[in-house]
Amino acid sequence: MTLALAMTDAKGDRSLRPSQQQPHQDYYVRVVEEGPDGIVVRGAKAHISHSPCNNEILVVPCRAMREDDKAYAVSFAIPANTKGVKMICAEPEIKDPENFFDYPISASIYLADSLLVFDNVFVPKERIFLCQEWRFAGDIAYMFGNFHRLSAESYKAVELEYLTGAAALMAEYNGIEKASHVVDKLTNLVMITEVVDFLSKAACEYAVSEPDSDLVYPNPMCANIAKYYYADNFHYVTKVMQDIGGGIVGTIPSHKDFTNPQTRSYIEKYLGGKASVPTEDRMRLIRLIRDLTSAYEDVITIHAEGSIAAQRLSIFQLADFDRYKAAAKRAAGIEDGKKHPIYSELPDFPPKP
Amino acid sequence: MTLALAMTDAKGDRSLRPSQQQPHQDYYVRVVEEGPDGIVVRGAKAHISHSPCNNEILVVPCRAMREDDKAYAVSFAIPANTKGVKMICAEPEIKDPENFFDYPISASIYLADSLLVFDNVFVPKERIFLCQEWRFAGDIAYMFGNFHRLSAESYKAVELEYLTGAAALMAEYNGIEKASHVVDKLTNLVMITEVVDFLSKAACEYAVSEPDSDLVYPNPMCANIAKYYYADNFHYVTKVMQDIGGGIVGTIPSHKDFTNPQTRSYIEKYLGGKASVPTEDRMRLIRLIRDLTSAYEDVITIHAEGSIAAQRLSIFQLADFDRYKAAAKRAAGIEDGKKHPIYSELPDFPPKP
Amino acid sequence: MTLALAMTDAKGDRSLRPSQQQPHQDYYVRVVEEGPDGIVVRGAKAHISHSPCNNEILVVPCRAMREDDKAYAVSFAIPANTKGVKMICAEPEIKDPENFFDYPISASIYLADSLLVFDNVFVPKERIFLCQEWRFAGDIAYMFGNFHRLSAESYKAVELEYLTGAAALMAEYNGIEKASHVVDKLTNLVMITEVVDFLSKAACEYAVSEPDSDLVYPNPMCANIAKYYYADNFHYVTKVMQDIGGGIVGTIPSHKDFTNPQTRSYIEKYLGGKASVPTEDRMRLIRLIRDLTSAYEDVITIHAEGSIAAQRLSIFQLADFDRYKAAAKRAAGIEDGKKHPIYSELPDFPPKP
Amino acid sequence: MTLALAMTDAKGDRSLRPSQQQPHQDYYVRVVEEGPDGIVVRGAKAHISHSPCNNEILVVPCRAMREDDKAYAVSFAIPANTKGVKMICAEPEIKDPENFFDYPISASIYLADSLLVFDNVFVPKERIFLCQEWRFAGDIAYMFGNFHRLSAESYKAVELEYLTGAAALMAEYNGIEKASHVVDKLTNLVMITEVVDFLSKAACEYAVSEPDSDLVYPNPMCANIAKYYYADNFHYVTKVMQDIGGGIVGTIPSHKDFTNPQTRSYIEKYLGGKASVPTEDRMRLIRLIRDLTSAYEDVITIHAEGSIAAQRLSIFQLADFDRYKAAAKRAAGIEDGKKHPIYSELPDFPPKP
Repeated sequence: MTLALAMTDAKGDRSLRPSQQQPHQDYYVRVVEEGPDGIVVRGAKAHISHSPCNNEILVVPCRAMREDDKAYAVSFAIPANTKGVKMICAEPEIKDPENFFDYPISASIYLADSLLVFDNVFVPKERIFLCQEWRFAGDIAYMFGNFHRLSAESYKAVELEYLTGAAALMAEYNGIEKASHVVDKLTNLVMITEVVDFLSKAACEYAVSEPDSDLVYPNPMCANIAKYYYADNFHYVTKVMQDIGGGIVGTIPSHKDFTNPQTRSYIEKYLGGKASVPTEDRMRLIRLIRDLTSAYEDVITIHAEGSIAAQRLSIFQLADFDRYKAAAKRAAGIEDGKKHPIYSELPDFPPKP
Repeated sequence: MTLALAMTDAKGDRSLRPSQQQPHQDYYVRVVEEGPDGIVVRGAKAHISHSPCNNEILVVPCRAMREDDKAYAVSFAIPANTKGVKMICAEPEIKDPENFFDYPISASIYLADSLLVFDNVFVPKERIFLCQEWRFAGDIAYMFGNFHRLSAESYKAVELEYLTGAAALMAEYNGIEKASHVVDKLTNLVMITEVVDFLSKAACEYAVSEPDSDLVYPNPMCANIAKYYYADNFHYVTKVMQDIGGGIVGTIPSHKDFTNPQTRSYIEKYLGGKASVPTEDRMRLIRLIRDLTSAYEDVITIHAEGSIAAQRLSIFQLADFDRYKAAAKRAAGIEDGKKHPIYSELPDFPPKP
Repeated sequence: MTLALAMTDAKGDRSLRPSQQQPHQDYYVRVVEEGPDGIVVRGAKAHISHSPCNNEILVVPCRAMREDDKAYAVSFAIPANTKGVKMICAEPEIKDPENFFDYPISASIYLADSLLVFDNVFVPKERIFLCQEWRFAGDIAYMFGNFHRLSAESYKAVELEYLTGAAALMAEYNGIEKASHVVDKLTNLVMITEVVDFLSKAACEYAVSEPDSDLVYPNPMCANIAKYYYADNFHYVTKVMQDIGGGIVGTIPSHKDFTNPQTRSYIEKYLGGKASVPTEDRMRLIRLIRDLTSAYEDVITIHAEGSIAAQRLSIFQLADFDRYKAAAKRAAGIEDGKKHPIYSELPDFPPKP
Repeated sequence: MTLALAMTDAKGDRSLRPSQQQPHQDYYVRVVEEGPDGIVVRGAKAHISHSPCNNEILVVPCRAMREDDKAYAVSFAIPANTKGVKMICAEPEIKDPENFFDYPISASIYLADSLLVFDNVFVPKERIFLCQEWRFAGDIAYMFGNFHRLSAESYKAVELEYLTGAAALMAEYNGIEKASHVVDKLTNLVMITEVVDFLSKAACEYAVSEPDSDLVYPNPMCANIAKYYYADNFHYVTKVMQDIGGGIVGTIPSHKDFTNPQTRSYIEKYLGGKASVPTEDRMRLIRLIRDLTSAYEDVITIHAEGSIAAQRLSIFQLADFDRYKAAAKRAAGIEDGKKHPIYSELPDFPPKP
């Protein structure tokens, strides 16, 4: 059995809380009726990957709620084919199935991201995890984020290997692997790749445990920084791949032209790079770069597992400013009576005159 | 009558000069035969926009040539349907003609970028501008670049207006136009837009004139910086649009779903943003952002009118380091006997003790 | 006769308006008494360069005021030696006068930035320009900023010449002027230098005139961007100078050691760089770089003529978002009934199907 | 007993190898005479911190050597007061000893960085570790770097705590800790601080062991990235501190003015910030920021433990491009017969059609 997790609500006007939305209050999934056997919910979740391919849908709130919004503090799991559940999926990026030459990634993967509508769906009591206990909505959202950030890094650390590899291989195929600006750009890609990998491991090594429950979860500071770091740098990575690839990344003939006897010999002859590399291999790599740098890839990198702004907010909130400030006060010779477990125990520095 | 300018050669291995290419020496267009009435040329030019829609093809060399490469120092103009001219165009980005809703830009514009092959093409004498006078190849390439950089900025200054506008409008439609991180990002977009505009104007205001010919051309320092500035920042601009747009930029349902009576009411209801904005307008804007941030747009921004590395090289070569160094020597009190027309005439500073 | 302009108030707690300050309300200069012949003012202005060397002090408000703060809407000019005016200057950076070798800049220039205190100073009526007409305080501050930004760029454009020159010359003296990372960094410095220069000129070329008064002032968008651009990049510029200079910028022996017979020959021998450059010239250049990259230089670059945040705010406020949004709406096919003088007159694009 | 490690040679013209230097060949320490009991060495090492305070000087080569340069492949340890050893130290940053108020850092720490001259110094046999075995010079330099990078991070991780703390505390003292641009900048500082900390720990956790010797040393990829990351970001960190601090960081009155009865009350009154913070504490913090952002601090951050360019070079050389390229080839469907232990074992992806 598999399940899809549905978190992000449709949201409507982002400046308004769930219960303030206009012209209707269903932008976030909410309880519209409560009976002895269960509840009826209405609203929509957005961008729920693979939802049509799962047995169950697990719904959780996407943010902290206030008392006014308590109808939106709702979590439950139901079969995907429950009455009233509607899925409107994004079209596949390509409409040319099995064209793995021109679209190595997008012909292989279709996430079926769907707008998941709950059109007055009945949820039986035993399938409800949270129902209007609004104080806990934020905890669920936060804890899900902690794991989700790390899951992002786990696949992104590998993804960065082939992004960096594609850039390095392209440089080789074009004969520019020794150009200083290329070395410079590849060095940046290596750093991004390795930092995400090391920080992801550190998120596990320095796992944190919840005082009351003993629940262990990835180090949130580390996991947030790692997620932010690749999301924030992704457009730079795509730029480098396109920069090294050349204009041909935009103007490459299609597989049909490549296999058309009338055009094949010209393409074979003129789209070669380094003499030792078959033209076909160079074309495949160019196609990979084109496919990896699509708007779709850009957008899921920024938004999947939480937006850039969300990570920055988490990093700021997680920061131990008391420790940092105590360090600064000691260096400046400021004594304001506040004690810090580490810094107040250290000898004076600079020394007292 | 219209003409397409064909400059960029297919190039093969970028670490080798034209005559050193392997396994053949036709990666750059060259003279393969010379007769009393004209020449025969062979080779390929890449990414020649609109070539099938033009009456004439004007060929110029894409770089400076050495004596060994003199066969490649060739420039001429011939009708586009001359025998032996072959055009292999890139596929359109979309295969869904007139779908202006989902693809407002790519359904409207198809550049027909072609690989332009010269398969032993005869060029009559009166159509030849340069034939093996290798010393002049670089001048042609350089001077074309001077005008081409500016032509880029002229349309880019306007393009930046709608890119910045799309981001600002999206923020408004999503209700986040007052979020501080959004204001911050929009401020950056405004700066990029205005800098490209002002520098493009300055390239004209501070035009340069060629001593021997009185030919006036755009200020090359200014034009190169302007071109570099938008190309270098374009991925940042797309990132901001996608960031502000949200995940829906990747997962937006298609126009077919929007007009399908079974799904329309759900989409109308749940993909709204700010209450005063029709869902359709919000969808159109999301589609515009998706279309503007495609890999194709990225690549032409970086590579059309010369690569990022080419602009940086030009900027370095154009820099008046003598002036800068003279300024530094004066400030440091270094006297090495070299005179500079401006700085050596100024009073000592710091004053001599 | 010369005059110093005193604008920036001491400010106290930046989260509070002038009249809300604690424990006293004199952080901003204000009118404390009003009589038939004039007013009495109290408060302090900060960082007023050269104030002890001027005949007159011209006081203007540093921000827009609300009615509550009307006592702070005050502008006047008085002789610098008026009773009750106190100046507490910052120490010079160096205490080793005329040591132009070790401190070529800071031994030559001392701005005598002072904390300018008005300790119940009487200002006669004929010397008052603004007295509690709070609605005009913001206009004065804004208009002063427009000119002040440009004055910054005028000297900064030149300053950038010797900063860039110092980096280029240092590279030459150290024999690394051809290292690719050095070329890369110098190219960035050239761009910063030239952009500030061209934008400063454009601020004059595209001057703006005030509708009612015909007062002409520098283009504020352009002037703000130019000021921001150098301030935002200054730390990068200093980093490049120090990076190219090497560790010796931090550990250079003093002029005394250089002229001491016991150490001179060692310094002469071992602190040389490129053989054709005298060791003394190399030392002078290293000293210049050290002096130009002091904390004092950093701070005045960021804060003189308005902070970085102030420029960003101005740029955002000056942006013509209506124009940008109209451009985006046209491209997206959005028709919301709003008209724009330029974009609504253009033909449809994309064309209507 | 303590020892100073002397690695960096004076270097002269950086474009020339040790034996090619002009007008003399002593820019790098070399063997000038070899006898039965030992060797005589000549040359200079630069920026050797604390050398006058150590018992012994340990000399190692700073780079790989070729056969021509074998005289420069020399390593030894001698007492600091050996005949012919000369130390010319940089002046202290301040000449105002014990002024811990105005110079909390530079009054407390004086590194006594010296130009360490070896003026025909005799080194007895038993004190020689390497003598002309030029093939090993690079190994010594490389391995020292591996440890030195980590030692840098160990103190820098702590230093970043008080730099970030100083910025955060300054924001609080000025009443701007909630301004969105300040939150944004502090978030960046937190990230830099935490990344350096986590990567430094990871350099230890993922230590590498030398095949032949079982010598264990810090993970060089990780250690280099961490060192690069703080050095590359340091100027940004100083900029944020100065930006948040305000112009007063440049124009702060001295401790003498603060304790002078004639000026004290004005300074007390007008240099306050948030009402609950004593003016003295605010002044101490401003002074700390000024002291921490000096040119000296900048330079040692960039250059101590190896330059920025050196780290980038190491990162590029350490990168496992074979792994990255294998990942890209698998994704692009390129089969060139090369095998990779991980990626060639994985199932085809995209699947074969």
